[in-house]
Amino acid sequence: MVASAAALEALDKDRDGALKRLFALLEIRSVSTDPAYKDECARCAGWLAEDLRLIGFDASVRPTPGHPMVVAHAKSPNADAPHVLFYGHYDVQPVDPLNLWETDPFAPRIADVNGEQAVIARGASDDKGQLMTFVEACRAYMGNGGLPCHVTILFEGEEECGSSSLPGFLAANRDELKADFALVCDTNMWDAKTSAITAMLRGLVFEEVIIHAAKRDLHSGLFGGPAANPIRILSNILGRLHDKEGRVTLPGFYDGVSELPDDIAAQWKALPFDGAAYLGDVGLSVPAGETGRSVLEQMWARPTCEINGIIGGYTGEGAKTVLPAQASAKVSFRVVGKQEPAKIAASFRDFVKANLPADCSAEFISHGASPAIQLPFASPALSAAREALAQEWGRDTVIVGSGGSIPIIGELKRELGIDSLMIGFALENDRIHSPNEKYNVSSFQGGARSWVRVLEALAK
Amino acid sequence: MVASAAALEALDKDRDGALKRLFALLEIRSVSTDPAYKDECARCAGWLAEDLRLIGFDASVRPTPGHPMVVAHAKSPNADAPHVLFYGHYDVQPVDPLNLWETDPFAPRIADVNGEQAVIARGASDDKGQLMTFVEACRAYMGNGGLPCHVTILFEGEEECGSSSLPGFLAANRDELKADFALVCDTNMWDAKTSAITAMLRGLVFEEVIIHAAKRDLHSGLFGGPAANPIRILSNILGRLHDKEGRVTLPGFYDGVSELPDDIAAQWKALPFDGAAYLGDVGLSVPAGETGRSVLEQMWARPTCEINGIIGGYTGEGAKTVLPAQASAKVSFRVVGKQEPAKIAASFRDFVKANLPADCSAEFISHGASPAIQLPFASPALSAAREALAQEWGRDTVIVGSGGSIPIIGELKRELGIDSLMIGFALENDRIHSPNEKYNVSSFQGGARSWVRVLEALAK
Repeated sequence: MVASAAALEALDKDRDGALKRLFALLEIRSVSTDPAYKDECARCAGWLAEDLRLIGFDASVRPTPGHPMVVAHAKSPNADAPHVLFYGHYDVQPVDPLNLWETDPFAPRIADVNGEQAVIARGASDDKGQLMTFVEACRAYMGNGGLPCHVTILFEGEEECGSSSLPGFLAANRDELKADFALVCDTNMWDAKTSAITAMLRGLVFEEVIIHAAKRDLHSGLFGGPAANPIRILSNILGRLHDKEGRVTLPGFYDGVSELPDDIAAQWKALPFDGAAYLGDVGLSVPAGETGRSVLEQMWARPTCEINGIIGGYTGEGAKTVLPAQASAKVSFRVVGKQEPAKIAASFRDFVKANLPADCSAEFISHGASPAIQLPFASPALSAAREALAQEWGRDTVIVGSGGSIPIIGELKRELGIDSLMIGFALENDRIHSPNEKYNVSSFQGGARSWVRVLEALAK
Repeated sequence: MVASAAALEALDKDRDGALKRLFALLEIRSVSTDPAYKDECARCAGWLAEDLRLIGFDASVRPTPGHPMVVAHAKSPNADAPHVLFYGHYDVQPVDPLNLWETDPFAPRIADVNGEQAVIARGASDDKGQLMTFVEACRAYMGNGGLPCHVTILFEGEEECGSSSLPGFLAANRDELKADFALVCDTNMWDAKTSAITAMLRGLVFEEVIIHAAKRDLHSGLFGGPAANPIRILSNILGRLHDKEGRVTLPGFYDGVSELPDDIAAQWKALPFDGAAYLGDVGLSVPAGETGRSVLEQMWARPTCEINGIIGGYTGEGAKTVLPAQASAKVSFRVVGKQEPAKIAASFRDFVKANLPADCSAEFISHGASPAIQLPFASPALSAAREALAQEWGRDTVIVGSGGSIPIIGELKRELGIDSLMIGFALENDRIHSPNEKYNVSSFQGGARSWVRVLEALAK
């Protein structure tokens, strides 16, 4: 029997034990944002380190300025095996409003939810259930001949309150945490029967612009006509950032943006995703992005320019015939592929300045610039994981994108220089951050089995 | 000797008496906005009615819900003479900051200001000095054979605090106040040696528009791309309200806008007005109105579209990746000539609606719509007054416009159906509403002589 088959068999035999361990973890009230639960967070880290030691990891609780990290190492018997860094977080969201919970959020139970057996508890899905899928896979391997990859585990306790200790911790322990790539289990499946790997995250460039015109507010009766109006100038500039096809007009904006590989494009096209229903949920119906692109493409694979805020002149009740001295807007760009944040910020600023009357000026404030994360579609690790998941779930793995960023992925890339495979088994309807959070038993058990297959595939 | 020559001679002989009467009026603390001065306002109205009765007017103080009006009538011996309604206001602005006054604001005195003799007091220019120019002209006529026109006088006591009683008073006394046209003395000369008649006031159409998109605020990571952004839609609409030549693009916007008559255009072109200095005072330098139009034309004779306020999304410190549910703007139009306010509001609303995505909507709020006031340039009254003033001041009278509205002119047109000749003798540097308000003695004496000539000319 090959190691993975033995590990899968071990997982299937010890389902009750795995659930019991998950329940023990879920009973710990590790709410990171509330100082009242500081000791519970420490206890949670201790519980995980102890469990990992029981499996055979060299595990320790590591202090930070905030809640502690858990770091654990285990070698594969195969010295040449690749080295993976697994990331999860043991802290959970607060439970309010408590009255909307059907039972105590920290008294996990199994219940039928829409015909599926699910674990109900705060953190069941986000992220204790998810991280335990990996721990259980490691347990199964280490009790049956050893891991196919060298494994380092990093569990964070501040993901739900800003991860403020994470960058410093990564930087301070770079050599210890360095690996060939990271595995992150904090994302969703496509649906309850279809696995997914998140391979692309859009980056974000956030600019604020303030247009200055006259040196004081003016009366539109006296000055309306000859005097520059900064709201008019700003509107005119912002109104020309998109063409009629919804494309961003800034010079060079699409440099570094690639078309999807044919197989991914075909997969997305075939997905049972109803763009109209997605928009319909929020009262909209017309996809506002680039003409000819699907809603999924517009969200996951295409860059945007959005105006997130604008203000100028009189904004109270009624009317005031004022020509204001200034007007301002907050403008952000979601970036993809190899778009360069600094170039996009510069192109925006140049565009604004090129469209100013000679007697007006523009002031700019940067509120951050981070590039997109994009796993090479052709990378062997992505292909191997995709195939392994397909074997487990019996259908093709969906390669998905995310319209927003996931900070840990950027930190791992920036601080350790490694790419992440984002593989998760949560579902859209898991009610994370909400009352009665749940994690399907099939997610938990299928997740653990998935990691067994993925670790084997990555080692080949 | 003709009547006007006798009246002019009488004015010149009684200069000291006229100043003494003006001083007595200026000593009354008729601050209309401060309830503490209610009795002073009533005393001021009484003083004026008494002075008019002394001259021979049938004068009375008329109560209103606020401060009283003064109404007075005097017939011309010539039964066929035209009938004029003269308007002025006896209330004054508050005096704060009192410490910036060189002497008591209600202890009028004559002083040298930049080489010119001037009366210094609150209300010296706005509007007690101005209204007394007309009273003195009437006094000079009525003591020397009678008025060339039938005269009704209306003095208001609430001009500086919103004129809230005026529309009702005009409507309730329509028959008594009806005249062939009105004379209003509350405007400026072109300069200390050049008289001016204000013949055009821009009207105002004020619209508020609210663009509604999604039914709640959205996260730009999840929805940026496919979801409509109301700020982007609003900016795009507002940014297209002007073309590259600064003209307003709304269909039919320029219907009813005429070019200036050649003589007025030539006069404005020849005026010693420095558009660059006018803009330079407020930190600007590039005329922002229609290309090819002078600053004076842009202010006085051309319609505008201005955005007076805009707000949407996140406008606090820092960044927030929100796609707001709505965005709104306050948009006003200064209108001229025969532009129809209702049509302009409708054209704006149609333009907004025509540029909305199908899943967004627009809500509109009207904050008022009033047409422009434009005296027919060829009207006999305007020509007569212009010529009479030119005779007095020894140089051509400038026909000027005003970029903003003067509410009384609109009320007289709306309630009584009569046009107004706006003839005033104040100067730009009279410091009205400010400490050390002044009225040049030459304005006061030349103003009274001007009215003698204007009344004679209007009677011809």
